[in-house]
Amino acid sequence: MPAWQDYLQAHRSRFISEFLDFVRIPSISALPEHAADVQEAAEWVAQRMTAAGLENARVMPTGGHPVAYGEWLHAPGKPTVLIYGHFDVQPVDPLNLWTTPPFQPEVRDGRLYGRGASDNKGNMLLTIVALEALLKTAGRLPVNVKLIFEGQEECGSPQIPAFVAAHKDLLACDLVLNSDAGQHSETEPALTIGLRGICELQIDIYNASRDLHSGSYGGAIQNPLHALAALLASFHTPDGKVAVEGFYDGVAELSPAERAQIASVPFDEAAYKAEIGVDELFGEPGYTTYERTWVRPTLEINGMWGGFQGEGMKTVLPREAHAKISCRLVPYQDPRQVLDCLEAHIQKHKPRGVKVSVTRFDTLAPAYLVPADHPGNQAARAVLTELYGREPYYERMGGSVPICEVFRQHLGVYSISFGFGLEDEQIHAPDEFFRLASFERGQVAYARLLEKLAEPS
Amino acid sequence: MPAWQDYLQAHRSRFISEFLDFVRIPSISALPEHAADVQEAAEWVAQRMTAAGLENARVMPTGGHPVAYGEWLHAPGKPTVLIYGHFDVQPVDPLNLWTTPPFQPEVRDGRLYGRGASDNKGNMLLTIVALEALLKTAGRLPVNVKLIFEGQEECGSPQIPAFVAAHKDLLACDLVLNSDAGQHSETEPALTIGLRGICELQIDIYNASRDLHSGSYGGAIQNPLHALAALLASFHTPDGKVAVEGFYDGVAELSPAERAQIASVPFDEAAYKAEIGVDELFGEPGYTTYERTWVRPTLEINGMWGGFQGEGMKTVLPREAHAKISCRLVPYQDPRQVLDCLEAHIQKHKPRGVKVSVTRFDTLAPAYLVPADHPGNQAARAVLTELYGREPYYERMGGSVPICEVFRQHLGVYSISFGFGLEDEQIHAPDEFFRLASFERGQVAYARLLEKLAEPS
Repeated sequence: MPAWQDYLQAHRSRFISEFLDFVRIPSISALPEHAADVQEAAEWVAQRMTAAGLENARVMPTGGHPVAYGEWLHAPGKPTVLIYGHFDVQPVDPLNLWTTPPFQPEVRDGRLYGRGASDNKGNMLLTIVALEALLKTAGRLPVNVKLIFEGQEECGSPQIPAFVAAHKDLLACDLVLNSDAGQHSETEPALTIGLRGICELQIDIYNASRDLHSGSYGGAIQNPLHALAALLASFHTPDGKVAVEGFYDGVAELSPAERAQIASVPFDEAAYKAEIGVDELFGEPGYTTYERTWVRPTLEINGMWGGFQGEGMKTVLPREAHAKISCRLVPYQDPRQVLDCLEAHIQKHKPRGVKVSVTRFDTLAPAYLVPADHPGNQAARAVLTELYGREPYYERMGGSVPICEVFRQHLGVYSISFGFGLEDEQIHAPDEFFRLASFERGQVAYARLLEKLAEPS
Repeated sequence: MPAWQDYLQAHRSRFISEFLDFVRIPSISALPEHAADVQEAAEWVAQRMTAAGLENARVMPTGGHPVAYGEWLHAPGKPTVLIYGHFDVQPVDPLNLWTTPPFQPEVRDGRLYGRGASDNKGNMLLTIVALEALLKTAGRLPVNVKLIFEGQEECGSPQIPAFVAAHKDLLACDLVLNSDAGQHSETEPALTIGLRGICELQIDIYNASRDLHSGSYGGAIQNPLHALAALLASFHTPDGKVAVEGFYDGVAELSPAERAQIASVPFDEAAYKAEIGVDELFGEPGYTTYERTWVRPTLEINGMWGGFQGEGMKTVLPREAHAKISCRLVPYQDPRQVLDCLEAHIQKHKPRGVKVSVTRFDTLAPAYLVPADHPGNQAARAVLTELYGREPYYERMGGSVPICEVFRQHLGVYSISFGFGLEDEQIHAPDEFFRLASFERGQVAYARLLEKLAEPS
């Protein structure tokens, strides 16, 4: 066993305790009142990098939530790797569905529960832990390493593209390792070679200047809730296709080889349904579930509201109604063009008698694909095969990691997804958790991957 | 000027001060946490009746929110009149749209602002004030009077039908005067001869056992928000008719005479639109606005919600979605049968891949009609003509006052709507108010009406 592995075991309880400290910081980037917490998380990360033996670790301003940067660049002739992750987290509502409070993390049955445990604090922290083990035992790293951790991922990274563009030299590298990623199962590794893109908008519908009595005025004017329901219903066909004209323009049809590669990833429908608690799967006709979530675009309503939501009844005809919508995109949809199609659809299907306004959110990313035979992927494949005793599946991911496309554009490099999250870890939901076994396996995996990347390819 | 009118003027400021005290009690019947406030309002009313010189004034239990009863029965040979009103009020949200807090009433420009000022505390209190003026000056009332004020009107009066049925002797009368009513304008009186009925239900849609990440799972399962939007959209045709099979069964078509009577009530479309702040009127094709709100049934969504409602974006695929719906009914729809039609429609149009449950609320009332030539209406007509210097319009009301039908069934008497609310008083909405001029005109009107009812018809 290499010395760094002994070190990881010897300091195991300290690393868990640090993980708990990290999750305690309520760094919700989407809520302005948590801005100071996001800043605190950035400072925590920079200090943690320094403690690990990394150099020039610091918090850097972006104009929005900050980033934390660190480096170790004393391996001349070896590749330079940029490790990416994020220390901000999702909002926590509905709060009442958490078993223990989201920012009072707790270990139960080998799992650390708390907001951000899996997405992405655990996965992110384990990379620093791995570097510490290497530095404190060998006194050096096998490759040059830069680390960039951001605080805006969960609110769409509005300032990150400009930050990366402005710091091309600082961030210059041969390869990105993206810790915001996952495995197939506890016993089966996976390499993510595709991510969906994203675009988002909000619809606000207004009518009267005030809430009205539904007895006095019901029947005389368009109810904003009726208008919103009709508009939202127009986005899909009853059988689950997106009904927005132009939405599927540019979507790459799947080749038989791609379909075969996806079909080779095992899918247990009963287990999948049981895990999320649904009776029935439902989606675009003609595609499997993995195809629907990995390589087909979607339009989802993420929130919708208006009128009375309390106990009992209030016979109000509300003045306004709202909905938040996001689309997951695939190669080669253009996010701005998709938003244009949505706006055109809304104009065309706008119900009579109400005012409809549309606001685009900043989050905007095309889908991302990395070649399966990229040398970084091949190194990752070798390490995962060693660790799990079996070859990884080549998967796509339904979610979006817009940063990959940002790095490709500004640094000219691919990002290799190398993370240890699992699908059941309730990310973005109550009772999010991360397995301590994954936290520790990830540390070993990162140390081995850096060694592997130092070998001549 | 009769002595009672002098008395009303002499004690004017005390009555306003009492009105303010009454509105200060936050007697929201729909919210369980306000039950003690509803009780306090009942006690306030009973004490106020005693102070006015009424007898046997007391709070009576119903099994739910209480009623306040009072009487004066020393006019042998004269009719017995039952005055009805309610001291409970609507919820107050959205609280941020109130100029001054809903339960810190304030007089501005001759209007008393506060929740319940118009609906129904002001209209209700003025009847007691009128009785006090008669009793303190003449020492007697021209007719026998009973008063029944309830605390459940805004939550559907669940225990009132049983209470009335159980107290037929106590409440026995020749005629009900219903203070929960209004006038046409400040200068034009109206008699309400029809009310719409009501029935209500809630739709709850569930799918996954938890909120899911819309990237990971978007496309694989039915989104409860999509299902709800599709279901709600199916309730109406795009041009504004209710699309529920059987919904219009039994609806009385309007006779040419009825349409003419409605058309004779002046309607200023520009003023109507300006008053509620809408650009366009919209409703069932083939009917005027008064017809749409008075004699045509409606189905309105009063609330709808699910998923993320905060600032910014949360890419969640929520586990549940909800909607509250009420229907306004006209002669001769059966409220239970309408709910049956709605449930059948929901079963038929239930989107695939989700669980849909329907809960009926207790509020259930058929529409109500009182003959225009009923002696009570004729007495009211005479008093209003005197007071305003012109004949009243014969109107219907879009809202529902289920108690009228309860009195008709259990006491065998009609209710005459005799109230002084005006359409712009923001009832059920922020900044509800009542005009002090109406408060005072109503006092005079009630005193005169009791005198008129004592005259041989």
